[in-house]
Amino acid sequence: MSDLGPEQIIRLEDDRVVLLDQRRLPQEQVDLECRSAADVAGAIRDLAVRGAPAIGVAAAYGYALAARNGEDLDEAARVLLESRPTAVNLAWALDRMQADPTPEAARRIHVDEVERCRRMAAHAADLVSPGARILTHCNTGGLATGGYGTALGAVRASHERGLVEHVWVGETRPLLQGARLTAWELERLGIPFAVFADSAAASLMAQGDVDCVLTGADRIAANGDTANKIGTYALAVLASHHGIPLYVVAPTSTIDSEIPSGAEIPIEERPPREVSERFPARNPAFDVTPAALIAAIVTEKGVHRPPYTESLPLATARA
Amino acid sequence: MSDLGPEQIIRLEDDRVVLLDQRRLPQEQVDLECRSAADVAGAIRDLAVRGAPAIGVAAAYGYALAARNGEDLDEAARVLLESRPTAVNLAWALDRMQADPTPEAARRIHVDEVERCRRMAAHAADLVSPGARILTHCNTGGLATGGYGTALGAVRASHERGLVEHVWVGETRPLLQGARLTAWELERLGIPFAVFADSAAASLMAQGDVDCVLTGADRIAANGDTANKIGTYALAVLASHHGIPLYVVAPTSTIDSEIPSGAEIPIEERPPREVSERFPARNPAFDVTPAALIAAIVTEKGVHRPPYTESLPLATARA
Repeated sequence: MSDLGPEQIIRLEDDRVVLLDQRRLPQEQVDLECRSAADVAGAIRDLAVRGAPAIGVAAAYGYALAARNGEDLDEAARVLLESRPTAVNLAWALDRMQADPTPEAARRIHVDEVERCRRMAAHAADLVSPGARILTHCNTGGLATGGYGTALGAVRASHERGLVEHVWVGETRPLLQGARLTAWELERLGIPFAVFADSAAASLMAQGDVDCVLTGADRIAANGDTANKIGTYALAVLASHHGIPLYVVAPTSTIDSEIPSGAEIPIEERPPREVSERFPARNPAFDVTPAALIAAIVTEKGVHRPPYTESLPLATARA
Repeated sequence: MSDLGPEQIIRLEDDRVVLLDQRRLPQEQVDLECRSAADVAGAIRDLAVRGAPAIGVAAAYGYALAARNGEDLDEAARVLLESRPTAVNLAWALDRMQADPTPEAARRIHVDEVERCRRMAAHAADLVSPGARILTHCNTGGLATGGYGTALGAVRASHERGLVEHVWVGETRPLLQGARLTAWELERLGIPFAVFADSAAASLMAQGDVDCVLTGADRIAANGDTANKIGTYALAVLASHHGIPLYVVAPTSTIDSEIPSGAEIPIEERPPREVSERFPARNPAFDVTPAALIAAIVTEKGVHRPPYTESLPLATARA
C-alpha cells in the first residue's frame, strides 16, 4: 500500500481524460476514459470524480480536451459548469481555462491544487495536538483534490509529524464516501482509523474520544459560512456543544467572495433513490455551517480566525 | 395496505413462537419459527425481532415455550436475558413470567404492551400541534412493540386526529430500521413521509421543516436519562440547538428505577461488520440522551415533565 500519485487519480492524455472511477472503490481500482467535455461533465455529475478541488481539475482537463477536439467551447464550459451546482471551484477553473485553453494550463491547475493542499495541510497540522483523535467526514483526501487532500491532507501531515493517535471516519451516507474512500486512503497510508455510522458522532464526542473535527468545504461565503457535505453542519453543532473545535480545511479557490453569506449558496438536491430505492426520500447533498461554529478556516495561505470577513484571503490564480 | 395485527407480528402457537422476520422487511414478509427459548434468544440477538417492548414480548413467549417443552427454566431465563443487554423490558417480562410461566401470562404481557401503546400514544398526541412536521428515528411502530407502537404509535394517533402534515424518517444506520421498517409501516398506514440520511436532520431543522422530534426508549434511568437507538442523542442536541422539543414515548416497563442515571446503562456494541465489511469500525447500538435535553417523557400513565426524579412513575405489572 502506498500513496496514489496525482496522475493515477486524474490525468489528461492526448485525446482523453482518464480518471480513477471513485464509484467502484474500494472494491476495484478501475479507470474511466472521457473523450469529450460532455463525457467529463457526466463523470462529475455521476460522481465518478467528486470533491470540490478534484471537480475543478476535471473541468479544466475537460475544457482543454474540448479545445483540442475543436468542440464549441462556450457549450463545453456550459455543460461542465452545470454538472454540479454547489462547488465554486468548477467556475473558478473554467475561468482560468477560458483565458488559456491549453493542456499545459490545465495541468498547471492540477499541480497547483496539489501544491495548495500540501501547504494548507502543513498549516492545519499546526492546530493538531500530540495524541490527537481526529474526527472527519466524507472524503477530502487525494481522491477529492487530485492528490494529497485538504482535511485528510491535514490528517496526513499531522500523522507525518507523529501527532495522530486515531482517526474517526464518518461513513457519510448516502454514498459512503467516508466508509469507501477515506477508509481506503487511510489504510493505504497506514494511519489508524475506524469507521462509524454518522449518527454515532455525538456519542463518540460525549465519551471524550474526539479532540478535533476536520472537514473540507465545497464553497465558503465571504463571511465564512461554509457549504460542505451533508452532515457537516450537524457535526459543527455537536462539536460546539461538546467544546470541541471544528476546523475547515480548503483552498482559497473554494472561497466565493461574491456572496456575503451561506444563504446565497445553492444546495444540490440529489436523486431520492440514493437514499431509498423504494420509499419517498429527501436527499440534500450539502448543508451550510454558520461561521460562528467554525473555530478556524485553513487555506494554503494560513490559518484564518473569526471574524472571517476580515481574515479570509481572496482566491488567487496560483498556489 | 392496512394495519398489521399483533398476532401477525409475534404469536405463541402450541409448540412454537412465530414472528415476522424484521430482517427481511420491506422486501418480503416472512415468518420465523422458534422451537425453544434458545431459538427465541437467537431471533432477538440477530434482530429478527427488535424494539424494547417487542423483545420483552418475545422473551415472555420464549419462556412460556420453554416451560411447555420442559426445558430448564433457569437456563431459559438466562439465555433470553443475555440475548441483548440494553433494553430493560427483557428482565421485566422474565420477572413476570417466572411468577406464572403459562401461555396465558405471556399473551397477557403482549396484550398489555399493545394497550399501553394506545394509551401513551393518546397522551403524546396531546403534545402535537395541527400541521405538525414530526421527525422520528429508528422504528418504534407496531413492529417494535408487538402492535401499535410507541413514538410511531404517537404519530399514528396524531394522524388519526388530523394533526400530521409530514413525517421525517431518519434512515437509522447501520441497520436502516427507519428506512426499512418505519417507512414500510407509514406507507401501510397512509401517512405522508420521507426518509432522509441521518446526517441531514440538522439541515432539515435549520430550514424550519421540523416541529417536534418523537423517539422511543430502550431504557430510562430514574433521573430521566434515556438510552435509545444510536443517533437519538445527536437528535436531542440538534433539536435543543434549534429550539425544537424532543419527546420520548415509552412504556413504564422501560423505566429502570434501580439505576440513578444514564451512566449506569450498559451500551451494546454490535459487530463492526454491520458498519463496514472491509475496514475497522465502531458500532455502538445505543446512546444516552441526558434528561436535560428531553422536553417530556410520555408513558401509558401520562405526560411526565422535568424534574423526572419526581415525575416518572414506577413500572406496573398491568396496563
